Amino acid sequence: MTTIDISGAGKYAEFGESMEKRAFAAHERLESGEPFTGWLHLPSRADESETRRVFEAADRIRQSSDVLLVIGIGGSYLGARAVTDVLCPPPGNSGTQLVFAGNGLSGAYTDRLLRYLEDRDFSINVISKSGTTTEPAAAFRIFERLLERKYGAGAAKRVYATTDAEKGALRSMARERGYESFVIPDDVGGRYSVLTPVGLLPIAAAGADAAGFLKGAAEAELSLGANDMSNPAHKYACVRQAMYEDGKKIELLAVWEPTLRYVAEWWKQLFGESEGKEHKGIFPASLEYTADLHSMGQYIQQGERTLAETFLWCEPTGKAEVPFDENDGDGLNWLAGKKADEINRTALEAVKRAHIDGGVPCLEINMGPPDARSLGGLLYFFELSCALSAYVSGVCPFDQPGVEAYKKNMFKMLGKP
Amino acid sequence: MTTIDISGAGKYAEFGESMEKRAFAAHERLESGEPFTGWLHLPSRADESETRRVFEAADRIRQSSDVLLVIGIGGSYLGARAVTDVLCPPPGNSGTQLVFAGNGLSGAYTDRLLRYLEDRDFSINVISKSGTTTEPAAAFRIFERLLERKYGAGAAKRVYATTDAEKGALRSMARERGYESFVIPDDVGGRYSVLTPVGLLPIAAAGADAAGFLKGAAEAELSLGANDMSNPAHKYACVRQAMYEDGKKIELLAVWEPTLRYVAEWWKQLFGESEGKEHKGIFPASLEYTADLHSMGQYIQQGERTLAETFLWCEPTGKAEVPFDENDGDGLNWLAGKKADEINRTALEAVKRAHIDGGVPCLEINMGPPDARSLGGLLYFFELSCALSAYVSGVCPFDQPGVEAYKKNMFKMLGKP
Repeated sequence: MTTIDISGAGKYAEFGESMEKRAFAAHERLESGEPFTGWLHLPSRADESETRRVFEAADRIRQSSDVLLVIGIGGSYLGARAVTDVLCPPPGNSGTQLVFAGNGLSGAYTDRLLRYLEDRDFSINVISKSGTTTEPAAAFRIFERLLERKYGAGAAKRVYATTDAEKGALRSMARERGYESFVIPDDVGGRYSVLTPVGLLPIAAAGADAAGFLKGAAEAELSLGANDMSNPAHKYACVRQAMYEDGKKIELLAVWEPTLRYVAEWWKQLFGESEGKEHKGIFPASLEYTADLHSMGQYIQQGERTLAETFLWCEPTGKAEVPFDENDGDGLNWLAGKKADEINRTALEAVKRAHIDGGVPCLEINMGPPDARSLGGLLYFFELSCALSAYVSGVCPFDQPGVEAYKKNMFKMLGKP
Repeated sequence: MTTIDISGAGKYAEFGESMEKRAFAAHERLESGEPFTGWLHLPSRADESETRRVFEAADRIRQSSDVLLVIGIGGSYLGARAVTDVLCPPPGNSGTQLVFAGNGLSGAYTDRLLRYLEDRDFSINVISKSGTTTEPAAAFRIFERLLERKYGAGAAKRVYATTDAEKGALRSMARERGYESFVIPDDVGGRYSVLTPVGLLPIAAAGADAAGFLKGAAEAELSLGANDMSNPAHKYACVRQAMYEDGKKIELLAVWEPTLRYVAEWWKQLFGESEGKEHKGIFPASLEYTADLHSMGQYIQQGERTLAETFLWCEPTGKAEVPFDENDGDGLNWLAGKKADEINRTALEAVKRAHIDGGVPCLEINMGPPDARSLGGLLYFFELSCALSAYVSGVCPFDQPGVEAYKKNMFKMLGKP
C-alpha cells in the first residue's frame, strides 16, 4: 500500500486548516459526479466479463506473437509503458515484447520498426478514442499494411482496437473489418485510462499480472476513499499546493529504480496536463537516482530555490552485494558484504538530508514492493492526489484546452480540407 | 554544421550590446587558459596515436564481445549513451551492444544484468577519474568477478580502464592487473569529456563512426572560434541569459527524433551542473516530440509563463509515408503520400507558432543530419555555448561544489572509516 512521509517538507507539512478544507471540498466535488470522474470508482466497478475478455485476448496475442505493436500516444501510451517497464524489465525479459508506435512522427523510427517486424510474428493493439489522431492513425495505416502483407486474410484477426464504445473512425473500422475491440469509457480521460483496457490489454499481453494490477487499484480505491486527513492522497495534494503557493514552482519526482523511469513520465503527463492551465501549475520534472545525482544533483543542491522534491521509493528486491576484495585496490572493502539496495536506501536518506539542508523540501512516497498490486495502488494514489490537488489550486483536472492550439496550426499548414 | 534560429525568441532576440560584451569577455576568459578548459581545443589537438589505440581496442572488443559493459556515472555515462542511441539505434541494431552499469545502485537491475551476461561474451570498460566513486566502483567489483569466473586468467584482457593518467585507485589497479588503459585528461571535467576516450571507446566499440564524431567536433571548434556575434554559440548563450534575466526560469529542450532523447539528458547535465549554483541557473528539462505534446503540451501552452523552449531538429532521413487507403475509414487520405518526416517538420512549425502565441519564446537548433560528424559538431556547440552562458551569468562553468553534500552524509551514515 502506498504511503507518504511529508516530515521532510518542513513548514509546509503544517499546511493548516484552510488548506485541509479546500481538499475536503475537492474530494466532495469528485464524488458528486462531475464529468470525467469515471476513473474514481473504476477499479471496484470493473466489468468482470469485459476484463476476462481482455485477458483472453492477451493470451491469444502471447501465443501468436513475438511482438505486440502498441499504437497510441499520450495517455494511450504512457500507462502501459510505465507498468510493463516495471513488471517486465529489460535486459533479458522473455515472452511477448511490447514495441510502441504512433507516439511520434519520426520516419527513421518507423523505417527501423518496419524492418524489425519483417521477420517477427506480431499483432497490433491500436488505441485511440477517435481513431483520427494524426500520429496513431498514420502509424496504424503503415503497420496494418505490413500485417496484411504478412498474414493476408488473417491480418484482421491480429488487430485489437481499443476505442470509443459507439462513435468514431476506429469504432467504425473495427466493425467493418472485424477487429476484436475494447471500450474506452466515456467518462475517463486519456491520462486517467491506465486501468481501462487502454492499459490492461498491453500489460497482460506483455505477461505482467494485469489482474493483480487491477486488484491493487481496487484496494487503493477503498483505502483512499476517506475524505479526511488520514488519507495520504489528501496529504500529498495539500503539501504540494502549500509548497507551490510559497514559490516552489517545480516538483521533481525522483525514482530510485531505473524501471520506474516511465512511471515518472506517466506522472508528468497526469499532473502537468491536469494542473498546467490558466498560467499556473507546478512544473513536473523527473529524475532517476542515483544516476541523476551526478547530472542534476548540483542544480538541486545549489540552483534556484524554487524546487520541491518527491522521492518515489519501492521496497528492494535485489540480491547483489559488494564483494570482498583481498587487494582492496579501490578501497571499497568497508562496503564489502553490503547489498547494493542497502546502499541505495542510505543514499536516499543522505540525499534527503542534504537537499533539505540546501532548501529543498522533500517528500517520500513508498509504493511497497515493485509488483503489480503495488503499482495498481500507486497509480490510483497518483490519480486521486492529482485530481484533489488540481481542484485545490482552482483548475479543472480533466480538461486540456491548450493542446488544440498547435493542432489547428498544423492542420492549416498541411492543408487539411 | 549546427545552426541556430533565434527569431522565435521575440524581444529576447534583441539582447543588446551589453549582453554581447559579457559574451565577448566570457569567450576571452575561456581562451585565456582557465582551469578545466582543456575541452576547448581538444578536438583539433587530439593525440592521433592515442586515438588510434582507442579505435584498435574498440575493434578487439567488437571481435570478442556480444556486449560491452560500460561502467560509469554522470559524464562517464551520458555522453556515450547519447551518441550511440543516435548512431546505433534500436530496435534491430546489430553488432556489439552497449549495456550500462555503475550508474545507479539498484540491486534488481544488477541481478538482471548478471543473468543477462551469463551466457554472452562480454568485456568491461570501466570509466572513473578516481576509481573510488561508489556506484561504478561497486559495479566494477561485481562484474569483474563474473568476468573472472567466465574467462579465468583471460579476464584482465577484457577490461579497459579509462581513468586518470597517473593518480588514483583505478590507475593503480590497471597497472597491477594489466588492464589496457586510456587517459581522462586533467583539464577536462566529466560533463565535458565525451570527446576524450571516456566517450570515444564505447562509441567506437558500438560500431559508430567515432572518427567522424571527432572530426565533426574539430570542424566545430574551428568554425565556432570567432569571438563575435556571428558565432551561433554566442547567440545561444546571450539569448538564453536574456530570457533568464526576464523570468524565463526553465528551458525545455525538445528533440524531434526519439533517438535524441539522451542527447537531451546529456545537455541537462552539461547546463544544469554548469549553471545551477549560487541559488541561480536556468532549470533544464527535456521533451521528446511529438510524443510529449500529448503529455506536457498542455502545461507548455497554458501553464506558468516561466518557460523558454529550444527545439533540437535534425535533418530527416526516413522513407515512411502515409499510405493511401481506398476506404479512408480514418479520414486520413488527405495526408496520403506525405512522408512522416514532412508531417513532423510541419508539426514543429505549428508548435513553434502556437507556443510563441502562448507566451513561450522558442529557439531552434538544427544539427544537420543525424550522423557522427553532425553530432560531434552539435555536442561541441553545446559545450561552448554552456561555458559562455555560465560565465555571462556570473558563475564558474567548471565546478560542482554542491555534489559533495549528500556524499558526505552517505559516507557518514554508512560508517566509512
